Amino acid sequence: MTDIIKRVVIENVTPNVDGGRFPARRVVNDTVVVTADIFVDGHDRLSARLLHRKAGANHWEKTPMQPQVNDLWQAVFIPCELGIYEYTVTAWIDRFETWRSQIEKKIDDDQAVAVELMEGAAMVTEAAGRAQNEDAEQLHLLAGRLLSEEAVEQPTAFVQDTTLSLLMARYPDTGTQIDYPKILPLRIEPHKALYSTWYEMFPRSCADTDPPSHGTFKDCIKRLPYIAGMGFDVLYLPPIHPIGPSHRKGKNNAILAGPGDPGSPWAIGSKEGGHKDIHPELGTLADFRDLLAKAREYGIDIALDMAFQCSPDHPYVSDHPEWFHSRPDGTIQYAENPPKKYQDIYPFAFDCAHYDSLGRELLDVVQYWIDQGVRIFRVDNPHTKPLRFWEWLIAACKEQNPEIIFLAEAFTRPKTMYRLAKGGFTQSYTYFTWRNLKWEIQNYFDTLTRTSVKDFFWPNLWPNTPDILPEFLQLGGRPAFILRLMLAATLSSSYGIYGPAFELCVNKPLPPNGEAYGEEYMDSEKFEIAHWDLNASHTIRPFITRINRIRRENPALQQTRNLIFHPVDKEEMLCFSKYTDDFSNIIFVAANLDPHHAHSAWVRLPFEEMGIPIEKSFQMHDLVSDARYLWHEDYNFLEIDPQVVPVQVFRIRRRMRTENDFDYFM
Amino acid sequence: MTDIIKRVVIENVTPNVDGGRFPARRVVNDTVVVTADIFVDGHDRLSARLLHRKAGANHWEKTPMQPQVNDLWQAVFIPCELGIYEYTVTAWIDRFETWRSQIEKKIDDDQAVAVELMEGAAMVTEAAGRAQNEDAEQLHLLAGRLLSEEAVEQPTAFVQDTTLSLLMARYPDTGTQIDYPKILPLRIEPHKALYSTWYEMFPRSCADTDPPSHGTFKDCIKRLPYIAGMGFDVLYLPPIHPIGPSHRKGKNNAILAGPGDPGSPWAIGSKEGGHKDIHPELGTLADFRDLLAKAREYGIDIALDMAFQCSPDHPYVSDHPEWFHSRPDGTIQYAENPPKKYQDIYPFAFDCAHYDSLGRELLDVVQYWIDQGVRIFRVDNPHTKPLRFWEWLIAACKEQNPEIIFLAEAFTRPKTMYRLAKGGFTQSYTYFTWRNLKWEIQNYFDTLTRTSVKDFFWPNLWPNTPDILPEFLQLGGRPAFILRLMLAATLSSSYGIYGPAFELCVNKPLPPNGEAYGEEYMDSEKFEIAHWDLNASHTIRPFITRINRIRRENPALQQTRNLIFHPVDKEEMLCFSKYTDDFSNIIFVAANLDPHHAHSAWVRLPFEEMGIPIEKSFQMHDLVSDARYLWHEDYNFLEIDPQVVPVQVFRIRRRMRTENDFDYFM
Repeated sequence: MTDIIKRVVIENVTPNVDGGRFPARRVVNDTVVVTADIFVDGHDRLSARLLHRKAGANHWEKTPMQPQVNDLWQAVFIPCELGIYEYTVTAWIDRFETWRSQIEKKIDDDQAVAVELMEGAAMVTEAAGRAQNEDAEQLHLLAGRLLSEEAVEQPTAFVQDTTLSLLMARYPDTGTQIDYPKILPLRIEPHKALYSTWYEMFPRSCADTDPPSHGTFKDCIKRLPYIAGMGFDVLYLPPIHPIGPSHRKGKNNAILAGPGDPGSPWAIGSKEGGHKDIHPELGTLADFRDLLAKAREYGIDIALDMAFQCSPDHPYVSDHPEWFHSRPDGTIQYAENPPKKYQDIYPFAFDCAHYDSLGRELLDVVQYWIDQGVRIFRVDNPHTKPLRFWEWLIAACKEQNPEIIFLAEAFTRPKTMYRLAKGGFTQSYTYFTWRNLKWEIQNYFDTLTRTSVKDFFWPNLWPNTPDILPEFLQLGGRPAFILRLMLAATLSSSYGIYGPAFELCVNKPLPPNGEAYGEEYMDSEKFEIAHWDLNASHTIRPFITRINRIRRENPALQQTRNLIFHPVDKEEMLCFSKYTDDFSNIIFVAANLDPHHAHSAWVRLPFEEMGIPIEKSFQMHDLVSDARYLWHEDYNFLEIDPQVVPVQVFRIRRRMRTENDFDYFM
Repeated sequence: MTDIIKRVVIENVTPNVDGGRFPARRVVNDTVVVTADIFVDGHDRLSARLLHRKAGANHWEKTPMQPQVNDLWQAVFIPCELGIYEYTVTAWIDRFETWRSQIEKKIDDDQAVAVELMEGAAMVTEAAGRAQNEDAEQLHLLAGRLLSEEAVEQPTAFVQDTTLSLLMARYPDTGTQIDYPKILPLRIEPHKALYSTWYEMFPRSCADTDPPSHGTFKDCIKRLPYIAGMGFDVLYLPPIHPIGPSHRKGKNNAILAGPGDPGSPWAIGSKEGGHKDIHPELGTLADFRDLLAKAREYGIDIALDMAFQCSPDHPYVSDHPEWFHSRPDGTIQYAENPPKKYQDIYPFAFDCAHYDSLGRELLDVVQYWIDQGVRIFRVDNPHTKPLRFWEWLIAACKEQNPEIIFLAEAFTRPKTMYRLAKGGFTQSYTYFTWRNLKWEIQNYFDTLTRTSVKDFFWPNLWPNTPDILPEFLQLGGRPAFILRLMLAATLSSSYGIYGPAFELCVNKPLPPNGEAYGEEYMDSEKFEIAHWDLNASHTIRPFITRINRIRRENPALQQTRNLIFHPVDKEEMLCFSKYTDDFSNIIFVAANLDPHHAHSAWVRLPFEEMGIPIEKSFQMHDLVSDARYLWHEDYNFLEIDPQVVPVQVFRIRRRMRTENDFDYFM
């Protein structure tokens, strides 16, 4: 029972992902708010400190915590470097403050406090023993003054002496100190990890010739002004490696390729090389490095696709057969999901005896591209590789390169997706692609932004991908594309589109047929080279440009956890807001989720929660149309015609001029 | 990276109180449901086992877990002894089941499976290596059969062989096994810990003489038929120890006692003894043991009040001055909450240097009364003693006596109350005493029964106590007493009243005046001996008797975590239900929270969730009035007049006879 004199309790320190098993995630220079439940039996006053440090540092930075309501304490720190930080909490009974608050009440009640002053003096003398030099002398002096006759007669000034408080806080009696039993980790990511705008494009379709010829990295460089002009800052390329000829798929996923068919870029590896090599028709490594450099001039990072699988022609297959499953008949196991067979893909056998050399080689692949200047990886199907493998690979990689961003392309069950994020993936694909109705969107994003998920899972929203042309886009026409774009761009601080199919509103699916299913694109670029008319009149490029500029100019849209939905009494209308912590930027979004019909609704905003003092009226500035409205604190009318533009993105301007602003009024 | 071949993930095992730092709490012979999130990359099949044991046992009982939805797995166990149990979860990739499900799909698709059969045979041969004797022989035989020509031609029967599945499940390949990293504790309590009906009574007011004379334990024995007749099974007595004369309080908490004033039983200790002694006017230890024995004949346990504090006259004060705070002037620190002073009470100094001998003595006090036959303790103000002290004391005590019940009388902030429960208190006082409005009651009980709190905090509801005559009872008249009684008795499986003040609807408060405040009883029994007219015509004894019989006859009311509120569109009406897991007992409660006016409402019950097939109509049997109603699956009408009875407690009878029940109909 040696512990019972440790009377203070510290519980529930947040952020906290699975009791500290995984780091929470924040952005560099974020204000990290740490809270804890701290309490003690009885009425004693407490002091608490937040301790934080860069992992590996010997020294803890200490920050006093402040009590909020209901035994919740809080403090903040600002991590200014990338990598892992650690934090914990410590607290003790503040005997001096307890004494002071009690003696003050007795003084107010006209009680005699001579004995209390003796108790105080004893405490101050103890503190003097913990201090040195002038501080010690000063404390001895102050202890003596508490025992003086003047103090007994007029105690208030002696008790409330500010030097005394200051010195007593400097040399606290920490005999009752309790340390939270865990040190919690926090991963600090670069700003782009949270706020990024992605454009996916097949380099081989960039030649801009008709009939299409195989595009190159040089063609990609020519496309950069177009991409940057729309406001994208990440250009994501499907795999750029040599494509295997064995079992190559033809147009529209045909089992046999025709003579000119280029094959799927995800069938990686041929006699020209594997994961560290470049498909010869795209150009050379020098060309690729040139693309990286030119893109950076436009503020664009190139994201590489990491698809850890092999075509039967990959050099690994002959050089390292031990990394694959050999079958009793001597063949290598191809990918399958019975009864489906994918003979063009050999999966790695992560549970083979040689997992160690396999893992090191794959880490080496990532490191190779980092050495070429790549900073972002979009990882293909991470949920079909061991979860602990990713945890190991990402940790190993980010130890040297904490700025690297990994996006998990996992469309699988929720807990696996969350675990990938906990295990290190910076950003994650989401179910947004299939969330179209108001309740679906609200439920899903409430889960992502208002539960513990918010501390580790950073969504990246994709209205389409080369694998997914959602039914909503197939059926909703151009308004559907604009709607889904704007929702993605405002619900989340990271989103992406697969273009130019997206901005050109390509909505023709492959008809259901055997292997095919209802969301595949007709004539998919996965299996052939496309030619796009970028200047087609129906392009939604102006809307993309506009919404990305709105994102750039409004910091409220550069976060995701600040999302708040507002009730609106119309199923087709979705309303939400985002604002910065200091309320300096407040965005209110109203969307008509029905791409076919105009709808209207009355909506009332919680202005007080938004830090807006109730005044006569506010300016609502629709940043999409540039229209401005006067709203008041009660219900306001909204009407949205999807044929014009299905989403309004208002910036709330705080205050209107009134007659009070005129000099003569005063 | 040695861990990456451990592909299985186990997370979020429940019940789980603070990651296993504290035990969850269940009742002996409960069906304990354990769940876990279990998943793996890819499509492999998993096997999972729940492991449980009595703490200290060497052997784990293993129970196969079943997958539910969304990667949630579940199994149950039934603890049949009191004390601490432990449980954890283990899981592995079931290679054989993975193989079998895949080969079956291929067979269905008419694919050749000769190589798959060879793979299966290899697995079966491996399993044979793990088996002994006949099992091993049998497995070798079955492996051979998988390789036979018949198997290649007609594989289904060989693949689906039930002996094969059985033996493969018996000798699984657990090479991929992952163990949940924690062993979680579970405290198994006696049935009365969850379902108990308390009556608090001052023994000294039991003499039944007018003018009142000091009652004795013998008088209490005479009162037992009255108490048992109302259906109570715990009789809780305020402290029975000698009362100190120093600074004794007089009637209505007067600072000076008059000559005949008996003093507060909570001012424990005099020259007649302390916490192990009995106030001489109540009788002898033999009398007390006689009361314990007689009460047990009525099915009643005596609950003792454990108030760890001393009057200035307590023998501890002279024998162990080291257990108290000495002040610089040589006096002992009395209790205070400045500016209030409680000179009649010396608190123990739990943070003194001699906390060890103090703690052991207090444990010895508890053990002393256990040795006399006491099984239940109501602990006074536990939140003013160190939280870890209780954790130590209760654990030490229950190690030898796991059947002991501790009720925490803590009215303090929520987190301290929860921590007391986590640290060992079996039952807890609650804020029910002040929750009168519908939203207050629903919010509070949703917190207690639908959040993690439900796993460790067992509420005991008190509509009144000797310290608290709530305003609602002061103002609401007899209907208010009946209402609060019935709410307490049905919302929670444990509740209590302070009688006879409660059943006699005593509602006169002490007027606000200096130290007094608005919820003290006028002429409180805390400071004087009372005489009660138990046969007064306005007694609500018949209602108490009825509701306690309803509780006894309906197991749904003997739990608390099964509470479900139902929406009803009237602020004054509260509706909730409770049912047993097997739906054999379904109780629906409707209360009019307004003690002054009749109210009506339409209510619709979620019959399907209650396991009731939708039929034409149901019998609703009001167990209070014995009236029976026919309800149908749509909205039904309720009208409640508080002057008749403010609460209806329906037992839902599943099925009505209809014309279909007649032989000739068929």
